[in-house]
Amino acid sequence: MPHIPWDRLWTGVNLATMTDPSMGIVRDGAIACSGGRIAWVGRAADLPAEPERLAAEVIRGGGAWLTPGFIDCHTHIVFGGDRTADFRRRLLGESYADIARAGGGIMSTVRATRRASNEELTVRAAARAAELSAWGVTTIEIKSGYGLDPGTELRMLEVAAGLARHVPADISPTLLAAHTIPPEYADRRREYVRLVVEEIVPAALEQDHATAVDAFCEGIAFTPDEACAVLEAGMAAGLHGRLHADQLSDLGGGALAASLGARSADHLEYLSPEGVRAMAAADVCAVLLPGAAHTLGADRRPPVGALRREGVTMALATDANPGSSPITHVGMILNLGCILFGMSPEEALLGFTAAAAKVLCLERDRGTLEPGKRADLALWSVADPADLCYWVGASPLASLVKDGAIVVAGGGNTKWPLRRVKTT
Amino acid sequence: MPHIPWDRLWTGVNLATMTDPSMGIVRDGAIACSGGRIAWVGRAADLPAEPERLAAEVIRGGGAWLTPGFIDCHTHIVFGGDRTADFRRRLLGESYADIARAGGGIMSTVRATRRASNEELTVRAAARAAELSAWGVTTIEIKSGYGLDPGTELRMLEVAAGLARHVPADISPTLLAAHTIPPEYADRRREYVRLVVEEIVPAALEQDHATAVDAFCEGIAFTPDEACAVLEAGMAAGLHGRLHADQLSDLGGGALAASLGARSADHLEYLSPEGVRAMAAADVCAVLLPGAAHTLGADRRPPVGALRREGVTMALATDANPGSSPITHVGMILNLGCILFGMSPEEALLGFTAAAAKVLCLERDRGTLEPGKRADLALWSVADPADLCYWVGASPLASLVKDGAIVVAGGGNTKWPLRRVKTT
Repeated sequence: MPHIPWDRLWTGVNLATMTDPSMGIVRDGAIACSGGRIAWVGRAADLPAEPERLAAEVIRGGGAWLTPGFIDCHTHIVFGGDRTADFRRRLLGESYADIARAGGGIMSTVRATRRASNEELTVRAAARAAELSAWGVTTIEIKSGYGLDPGTELRMLEVAAGLARHVPADISPTLLAAHTIPPEYADRRREYVRLVVEEIVPAALEQDHATAVDAFCEGIAFTPDEACAVLEAGMAAGLHGRLHADQLSDLGGGALAASLGARSADHLEYLSPEGVRAMAAADVCAVLLPGAAHTLGADRRPPVGALRREGVTMALATDANPGSSPITHVGMILNLGCILFGMSPEEALLGFTAAAAKVLCLERDRGTLEPGKRADLALWSVADPADLCYWVGASPLASLVKDGAIVVAGGGNTKWPLRRVKTT
Repeated sequence: MPHIPWDRLWTGVNLATMTDPSMGIVRDGAIACSGGRIAWVGRAADLPAEPERLAAEVIRGGGAWLTPGFIDCHTHIVFGGDRTADFRRRLLGESYADIARAGGGIMSTVRATRRASNEELTVRAAARAAELSAWGVTTIEIKSGYGLDPGTELRMLEVAAGLARHVPADISPTLLAAHTIPPEYADRRREYVRLVVEEIVPAALEQDHATAVDAFCEGIAFTPDEACAVLEAGMAAGLHGRLHADQLSDLGGGALAASLGARSADHLEYLSPEGVRAMAAADVCAVLLPGAAHTLGADRRPPVGALRREGVTMALATDANPGSSPITHVGMILNLGCILFGMSPEEALLGFTAAAAKVLCLERDRGTLEPGKRADLALWSVADPADLCYWVGASPLASLVKDGAIVVAGGGNTKWPLRRVKTT
């Protein structure tokens, strides 16, 4: 029997390898994998022999486009309850403060999350993850931050990590105990920060699920000094640093992320020109989250032009969460990235692949189509990769490949907790 | 054998009957159909006997929500080609005029539509209709307007009407020959209007697919006098009148629709207070199209507050089209209706049901859950109907019923014309 070098080979595909700012396009391409890794990428015409002699399985793509599996590098998809009532109140013109006083807001999610069992959290989050999976996502970052006590924060990280058993995706959990000050510490901010630094961060390290530490630096959340203390504690122990920065006001969050050597600063609607330069100098990634800008009706936009000029890596993510970005439709986020934020289709798609891999410190392992990278692939029934940003409809995902294996992409319809009604 | 009065009975469902401004909610409800019509609606507790004795089939909904099948009352889903290149150019800051000069814009769609066979138009449009179907849509209005010559306009209406063979939806075709002035008539506007009035309208009546006549009244399209001539010609022959009005400037389109006795005025970003009052007095429906406002980055919003105060019926629709609203995701439109236009979730959902039925002059036949109405039903896996507006993800449609029969809802992935590549 002849030696067949590759497990699986795709021909008849166009490739967006994501290896350059024009998305590293290879038309009439081919890609092969072996042992869960990409073994060969190039023009089909340059294959070293006839396809059938090269791989155990040959798949003809019929002209579809193949990209790296998408990477959603900023989500909060593990949570209890929902915020439909808040959504309704906000449309009636009620303020965030009024909604919070009426029992809504982030604290209603914290209460529901603390009450929820791990199983309940897992089932709901798995359905949300399945919707991302149906959009080609093979790597999902998931933050804690709706527990705000040691036990629930650790439970959130455990549930997040466990989702990899239920969806064909790798999970990158992030500790966000510094999401907001919990009500029981309302008059004892310093004690809560001390709790995070001295107890929750060490406990998360001990637990060993989290790969990054994050903080929400904002007037309604943590001061730059407080955020700094939390990030330093986590980063000193080896976690990557992330920062929710300059979303609602300019607190110098971008510059703070740069001074700390954090991997990313996220949101950035109020990022100053100095912040842009500091991020560029320190190679801090910008994570742009247009779902939140859309949902909150924000009138500011992140300085995409300045970030582009200064060469800051721009990632794009769903920010999927129950309050400010209730969105698991990646197509809508790509569309908003272009229309609301002025990204080009190329920037938006690089933002969900190569740039997002860098945010998660996985750029040597995934995010581009290159030999040696993980064979996480998404095959799309589109005529042009920009169609993914242009037309907002059902996912045009034709096939999803995780670690070289063709997996089923779920379209999950189970994310709403139905209330039982009495049947006669 | 006992007499079983009903074909099918749903219990264990919550109903949004859409019979009042609060959506006519019936919790712990039941609904029955016979002969394709709704036979009974009410609280399950009020059923006249045990469910099993009442219907040949009893379906338990497990607490899901049941609404009338959605009605998308303004679409342009029959067209050739795509406008991805335009989308890319617009993001780079090119003007509409520049794009048109470079071969893009609406005329590129007209050229592609004229070139396309009926089969090509049908296959692409069917995939778009299937995406609407996956969002519970059982009635679709579809406009012509990319032919702009007698033959192609009639072909578009024929293709639209024929889609009912491919998706479980009724189609309501609208003649929109007055969409824009075709280039061959650029210097002969009056001749084109005469062609529409004297040839295309009569030919469409003869063909007998169109149920309405529409015109685009705008600086870049037809003047109020021209639009008036076209609507009068169609309405005199029994077609319902529609008008693309006050989208980009205030030409008094709302008042014009009222003076003509048209059924609706659509878009309305520049509708004046006088226009609102005229529409209210003449009972002209407002069709709100936030997908176009979003895609075009419009800075004006239709006067939703004034329309609400004056009691104008407000419908909501996708406006699905390749240029200004490339969206077949009804959830995104519901979300945009709320967030961009300030509609309440109730208004948005009534806008896709009862109000949309009125726009299509079908309010006696569908759009609400009432005995005698057509049994077009959508069953949703949501905890609250507002969730359909709140969370943008995969369609939570659990089951779709057309004329009393449970039908398969397609999630169509075939809307992109793949270009063949050479395989080795």
